[in-house]
Amino acid sequence: MTISLAGTPLTVGPDASLAIQSHFDTTRRFSLALVEPLALEDYGVQPMPDASPPKWHLAHTTWFFETFLLQPYAPAYQAFAPQYEYLFNSYYNGVGAQFPREQRGNLSRPTVHEVLRYRQHVDAAMTQLLAQVAAGQLGEHAGDITERTVLGVHHEQQHQELLLTDLKYNLGHNPLYPTYREPLSPVAVTTPNVSLANFVEYQGGQITVGATHASGGFCFDNETPRHDQLLRDYALSDQLVSNGDYLSFVQAGGYQRSELWLASAWSTLNNQAWQAPLYWVQQDGTWFEYHLDGLAPLDLQAPVCHLSFYEADAYARYAQARLPTEFEWEHAASEQAVQGNFADSSIINAPIGSGAQVATGALKPLPPSTTQQPLQSLYGDLWEWTMSSYAPYPGYKPLPGTLGEYNGKFMSEQVVLRGGSCFSSANHIRSSYRNFFYPPDRWQMSGLRLARDL
Amino acid sequence: MTISLAGTPLTVGPDASLAIQSHFDTTRRFSLALVEPLALEDYGVQPMPDASPPKWHLAHTTWFFETFLLQPYAPAYQAFAPQYEYLFNSYYNGVGAQFPREQRGNLSRPTVHEVLRYRQHVDAAMTQLLAQVAAGQLGEHAGDITERTVLGVHHEQQHQELLLTDLKYNLGHNPLYPTYREPLSPVAVTTPNVSLANFVEYQGGQITVGATHASGGFCFDNETPRHDQLLRDYALSDQLVSNGDYLSFVQAGGYQRSELWLASAWSTLNNQAWQAPLYWVQQDGTWFEYHLDGLAPLDLQAPVCHLSFYEADAYARYAQARLPTEFEWEHAASEQAVQGNFADSSIINAPIGSGAQVATGALKPLPPSTTQQPLQSLYGDLWEWTMSSYAPYPGYKPLPGTLGEYNGKFMSEQVVLRGGSCFSSANHIRSSYRNFFYPPDRWQMSGLRLARDL
Amino acid sequence: MTISLAGTPLTVGPDASLAIQSHFDTTRRFSLALVEPLALEDYGVQPMPDASPPKWHLAHTTWFFETFLLQPYAPAYQAFAPQYEYLFNSYYNGVGAQFPREQRGNLSRPTVHEVLRYRQHVDAAMTQLLAQVAAGQLGEHAGDITERTVLGVHHEQQHQELLLTDLKYNLGHNPLYPTYREPLSPVAVTTPNVSLANFVEYQGGQITVGATHASGGFCFDNETPRHDQLLRDYALSDQLVSNGDYLSFVQAGGYQRSELWLASAWSTLNNQAWQAPLYWVQQDGTWFEYHLDGLAPLDLQAPVCHLSFYEADAYARYAQARLPTEFEWEHAASEQAVQGNFADSSIINAPIGSGAQVATGALKPLPPSTTQQPLQSLYGDLWEWTMSSYAPYPGYKPLPGTLGEYNGKFMSEQVVLRGGSCFSSANHIRSSYRNFFYPPDRWQMSGLRLARDL
Amino acid sequence: MTISLAGTPLTVGPDASLAIQSHFDTTRRFSLALVEPLALEDYGVQPMPDASPPKWHLAHTTWFFETFLLQPYAPAYQAFAPQYEYLFNSYYNGVGAQFPREQRGNLSRPTVHEVLRYRQHVDAAMTQLLAQVAAGQLGEHAGDITERTVLGVHHEQQHQELLLTDLKYNLGHNPLYPTYREPLSPVAVTTPNVSLANFVEYQGGQITVGATHASGGFCFDNETPRHDQLLRDYALSDQLVSNGDYLSFVQAGGYQRSELWLASAWSTLNNQAWQAPLYWVQQDGTWFEYHLDGLAPLDLQAPVCHLSFYEADAYARYAQARLPTEFEWEHAASEQAVQGNFADSSIINAPIGSGAQVATGALKPLPPSTTQQPLQSLYGDLWEWTMSSYAPYPGYKPLPGTLGEYNGKFMSEQVVLRGGSCFSSANHIRSSYRNFFYPPDRWQMSGLRLARDL
Repeated sequence: MTISLAGTPLTVGPDASLAIQSHFDTTRRFSLALVEPLALEDYGVQPMPDASPPKWHLAHTTWFFETFLLQPYAPAYQAFAPQYEYLFNSYYNGVGAQFPREQRGNLSRPTVHEVLRYRQHVDAAMTQLLAQVAAGQLGEHAGDITERTVLGVHHEQQHQELLLTDLKYNLGHNPLYPTYREPLSPVAVTTPNVSLANFVEYQGGQITVGATHASGGFCFDNETPRHDQLLRDYALSDQLVSNGDYLSFVQAGGYQRSELWLASAWSTLNNQAWQAPLYWVQQDGTWFEYHLDGLAPLDLQAPVCHLSFYEADAYARYAQARLPTEFEWEHAASEQAVQGNFADSSIINAPIGSGAQVATGALKPLPPSTTQQPLQSLYGDLWEWTMSSYAPYPGYKPLPGTLGEYNGKFMSEQVVLRGGSCFSSANHIRSSYRNFFYPPDRWQMSGLRLARDL
Repeated sequence: MTISLAGTPLTVGPDASLAIQSHFDTTRRFSLALVEPLALEDYGVQPMPDASPPKWHLAHTTWFFETFLLQPYAPAYQAFAPQYEYLFNSYYNGVGAQFPREQRGNLSRPTVHEVLRYRQHVDAAMTQLLAQVAAGQLGEHAGDITERTVLGVHHEQQHQELLLTDLKYNLGHNPLYPTYREPLSPVAVTTPNVSLANFVEYQGGQITVGATHASGGFCFDNETPRHDQLLRDYALSDQLVSNGDYLSFVQAGGYQRSELWLASAWSTLNNQAWQAPLYWVQQDGTWFEYHLDGLAPLDLQAPVCHLSFYEADAYARYAQARLPTEFEWEHAASEQAVQGNFADSSIINAPIGSGAQVATGALKPLPPSTTQQPLQSLYGDLWEWTMSSYAPYPGYKPLPGTLGEYNGKFMSEQVVLRGGSCFSSANHIRSSYRNFFYPPDRWQMSGLRLARDL
Repeated sequence: MTISLAGTPLTVGPDASLAIQSHFDTTRRFSLALVEPLALEDYGVQPMPDASPPKWHLAHTTWFFETFLLQPYAPAYQAFAPQYEYLFNSYYNGVGAQFPREQRGNLSRPTVHEVLRYRQHVDAAMTQLLAQVAAGQLGEHAGDITERTVLGVHHEQQHQELLLTDLKYNLGHNPLYPTYREPLSPVAVTTPNVSLANFVEYQGGQITVGATHASGGFCFDNETPRHDQLLRDYALSDQLVSNGDYLSFVQAGGYQRSELWLASAWSTLNNQAWQAPLYWVQQDGTWFEYHLDGLAPLDLQAPVCHLSFYEADAYARYAQARLPTEFEWEHAASEQAVQGNFADSSIINAPIGSGAQVATGALKPLPPSTTQQPLQSLYGDLWEWTMSSYAPYPGYKPLPGTLGEYNGKFMSEQVVLRGGSCFSSANHIRSSYRNFFYPPDRWQMSGLRLARDL
Repeated sequence: MTISLAGTPLTVGPDASLAIQSHFDTTRRFSLALVEPLALEDYGVQPMPDASPPKWHLAHTTWFFETFLLQPYAPAYQAFAPQYEYLFNSYYNGVGAQFPREQRGNLSRPTVHEVLRYRQHVDAAMTQLLAQVAAGQLGEHAGDITERTVLGVHHEQQHQELLLTDLKYNLGHNPLYPTYREPLSPVAVTTPNVSLANFVEYQGGQITVGATHASGGFCFDNETPRHDQLLRDYALSDQLVSNGDYLSFVQAGGYQRSELWLASAWSTLNNQAWQAPLYWVQQDGTWFEYHLDGLAPLDLQAPVCHLSFYEADAYARYAQARLPTEFEWEHAASEQAVQGNFADSSIINAPIGSGAQVATGALKPLPPSTTQQPLQSLYGDLWEWTMSSYAPYPGYKPLPGTLGEYNGKFMSEQVVLRGGSCFSSANHIRSSYRNFFYPPDRWQMSGLRLARDL
């Protein structure tokens, strides 16, 4: 059996173990880098039920390794604190009861310091476990341990993204609009005019999509099995919809025109009194947008962000276009390399806590640059809503045991997004990656790219 | 242009007009036949927001003809009561504001008598309008009038089914368990044992599904356009899941085993305290089931009914099978004739109100009979949940204007059901017909047929 | 022991029995008179959880006699339908479980006809029971039977008032604004100008309030025991606050000025979007008010009606006055006779169903007439909010057994109203009568009279 | 004009200013002493809408001085941060809009450190302002400044109590049951047996209650004016109801017997699934109770705590007694000195942050000691529910202007409690002090003392 990290297949063995240990270390360290700019008070806040506190993300990702690796495979392992099994279980009924999700923000204890010690405890035990695998001491379990460790690393990458997303929700709803971090020095981009967006045409036919565990690169079970789909000829916009585009929609009364909205969207819009995307703030007639570097005037060239599926769908109808299916997207994306504006675009490997600034990417979507790629902003920047419901692929089998709860049980009423965002790590994303959220959700880094029939 | 009634294509002209008038009359009469057994008190009750009162169904179907036929095309038409435009609009924002759905049961006025007079008023005007079409007096509008009339007839058939469904919800939740109508004389069936269910195998490949307005038979816009789909080899059970099958699931702790349920299903099950299908009632250890002919011991051979998608999905997982896709279902169904246990199976054309009994079908799903058809109970009996989300077909275009709200705006978060039920009329159903409800809905006549990969 | 009907003490015995039978008959007949103008469809509607259907009131008052008189004291009594014990129990936990209050409107069965037969069944049995008492055949139970019958009669009078109140809520919220009954021929009143309202001064000191079971007249347990209260000198307005007065408050921005409202009132006002009293309707800039005789322009001289305690309190603060305490009210009222605008002001004793009109009072509050009484509109017209919380009198003892649930368990969070209304029967009201509702309730016939310290 | 601090009347002037400055300093310092044992993470948590975060209490009490003293009277005062006017306004509509109460726990910024700097800023400005008053530089405003400062000090004492109460709610609902502080060395008490409780008899008659601003000691406006009440002879238990007493009620099925409960209580009990007082925890059949020093086995001799009014009322009915009126309580209490188990019972005046332990009282109710007082545990220990609704005294006038919102607007639907608790400061409590909460509230330090008629 072979597994891989970020695309490079590895045979189980010393080299693979070394690579996994390194991937583990880098990812665990990156979580700490992400919370480096926080005030201690920021770690505990849960501003809405879906937006978990940073402290919880730090603990839950650790719980994952403790529960699925150390408890079953490390014979002498001592749990750091028995109650954490309950406190930091997210949704695995197979493990046991869960502390109520909407109360995660009420847990002032354990403190941040205790959670950091919990991380150290588990990291040390994991390092020992991986060394035992490398030394061939764990026999038949070596494969499982390796696979689950890689899964745990990708799991933590998902939570790093959520940590930023949930933190943004907190800070962006504080009337003081605090910044997470000052803006980086401006990125040099040649900003094309909005009107330069063009549709790129793709030929349909019977194509193959999805991934396979056996093929080398890591993938989640929901990307399997690889299988065929039938596409008609189609076109995709070479750019994401921009703030300027979307502002036209707002100013044209888009949020007041029922004929543009799905029935459930119209009901939600009215109940929630939506007037504009989530982090748009109007002050004295001027539109501002909140990003992690603070509140600033709306950048009309940048992609519009924090749309729900409902808003993306309504905008597409307004634009006399539609959203792509997830297979159209994947077919087009499979021809481009995974490059873009990611969260880990510029990590400085300074020791955590050393005082050196640990930089990350821009942490906000950027205006399209003049690359030679046919589709701009395809990877990174923003998750792109598709029109595809999140459903099992033909022949889909969840992972065995409790880890089967990872993906499969959520395949109902959600919609697929593709491409990763500026909060994702580059080595976490691939063309077959399926993200999924509910149609009204809009606290994610989500935007849209238009599609058309030919 | 040609249209058709229940499959027979008709050219516009005198014969077509005659046929349409007849179809209109029969359908309008059937609505009255359905309410014949009601007490006057039953007409007004709305036992939950989704279950509209019978009186409202009678008025709303009439409003449809008034709004979309008489107002635009009958020049001298006088509205029966101007406020009805508001009171009996269901969800057409293009027509104007709507009386709040959840308060339909509060409208003691207009009375039943006034609603029946409203029906007579509109029926007379429609008859006159259709006569003018037949006489060639309406020129360019003739086609539109004919098409919309046929749509209105099918719309009324949908509401006839809902009327029975909603009425059942009312009577079946009354502690007195009143009957709508005494049971018909027992249907002669040879009841096979439950264990006789077999899987019928179908070959996959590229198949064509859907319907087209131009092809002769009436269809809704959501069945168009006709297009290709790719199927893998699959098998369908030749029977619906029976009460006996489902009872085994209940007794095996099916409602307590989280691993069988989708996450949103498990949450719903616990919030709603589901323990069994909707109309199952346990008294002194014995299971009973309510149907429109009253409360009776559970018939283990009859198909299990009133399942939500969540329950159908969980049962399929328990049975180590899955639900079919809507395309697998349609592919198999396209080979069988539309015959089965329908609401209009035995209409006696007695004059309404004459005292003669106006019989209908059994109004409950029946045990499978020994037919020569490969799939039993395929049409009629019960709507069958598929695993397909309700989505637009590739290239789908809603009807123009306000009638475009008929189907398209509901294509989100719902699931497709196929096949019609014992509450449907036979000439309303076809293999391409797509019904749709939300995953937790279980007051419909909904059951399931298992599918498997080969 | 002596009891009385409407103030006239009676010894138990043949004369008393005759009087009780007559009081019973008159009251039972009046319930039927009140529903005479209804369409059958009006009997079943429950437009909000607190507003029970007329059919339910007819059945529940009957249930009271069956449960508390016939079941315990009439040996051969056969229940009309055993399930009614559950269906028509309001809130007596001592009797058993209750059908959920908010679903009373869903009971299309039993039908109105069946409920009327239930009434006849119970009336016949009660007549027989009272005859046995008169004949001295029931020995030691005679006193209990007599007392409970009188209680049941007063209980039915309370429900007659609620029946009208709840019916008004239904019809007054129907966009068609149907009338219950055409207006009576106009009452001849000399309408004084609004500004003629004056304050009448009363001397304080130690006064006696309340009633006693032993004193002759019937009273509820919550009026007992008679006891002393200490009053300071005070003044009461000789008129109720008028629509004209209240319109000034509305036009002066009363509903937008937080400083006039209690904190919980301000919260309720904003949550419910209150802008004016419940049945005020603004059309094209003109204010209308709905009464049981239909929608008509606001009568500025008539008392303002359908105020919550919150609104009455805010208006009093606006008027630099306050609400009276219930003891100030009773002290002043004890000097005036119980005369006024009541529901039974002009009953014509025509046989029910004979086609003859069974008239009642005006069924709406009337402008003050030029009487010689110091306080106008004191009895009848409108229930008057006081500033007194509904609490037990010193030494209060509830009735023994299940009937102890009648009043005592509601002595929390409610406010006392005094004086009866145009929906009350004259012989049901007295100066010590305590009505009570929650501060936000405004579907009752409730208004206010200002008070001041001297 | 004279005012006083904790009972000692003071003329305005240098001595008064000095005393006020000292009272101000001590109180402000005590707030900091109370948060000394907290982890930084504890400052921000709001575990339910009513339980504000400690950080908010620290800021809001500071806001009070800034808003009502410094802004109007200190000419050169610079606001620390303009947005705090909005963020830390509790409910004063007259000041402006308020940050939503239920979201106080979402404010990770300002940080604790910033709030402490805010306190220092305001403390310095207040010290300067009071010095100007002492120096006679503020002329006509001196009286207002002095009065409002004293009000602000008492306001802060109220919030100190709430800070502890709300903190307890947070820690006591954390599955880890963290302690706020280890138990003090055990207090020497001679614990009498539960059965030693006796009723002390009091003679009724016309008595005088309440306080007056002019009489020397500070009081809130809701204690004024002093006025007469009429009492009947009555008796009060010389002890609070104990845990042992209340356990008997629980074990006798008290929470399952509807006849013991008010109707709204019974509904609340069932909706909330109450089985025992708030902080009682049953583990393996043994009852524990959480106090700020941790979870410990239930002390049967200690007073039962954290009862709602509903529970206190039900227990009294079970015990064939009743709750006292607030006037009975005050009449009896006016004869005893204000001594007891208070929060500031043993302050050590160590500098804040010096590392020395700043001790407080026991912070939990203690078993009664053998004092010579007729009523034990009368002051301190627990707030005692009365049966009196919170209402204005005859002739009550709120403070003028925005400060009139302090008390008056809450006089609806609440119930009066008397006597202070172990979370109160001794110099904050007096016999006329009226506390008030809603009947279902049970997160306060609330218990009960039985009363009886004679």
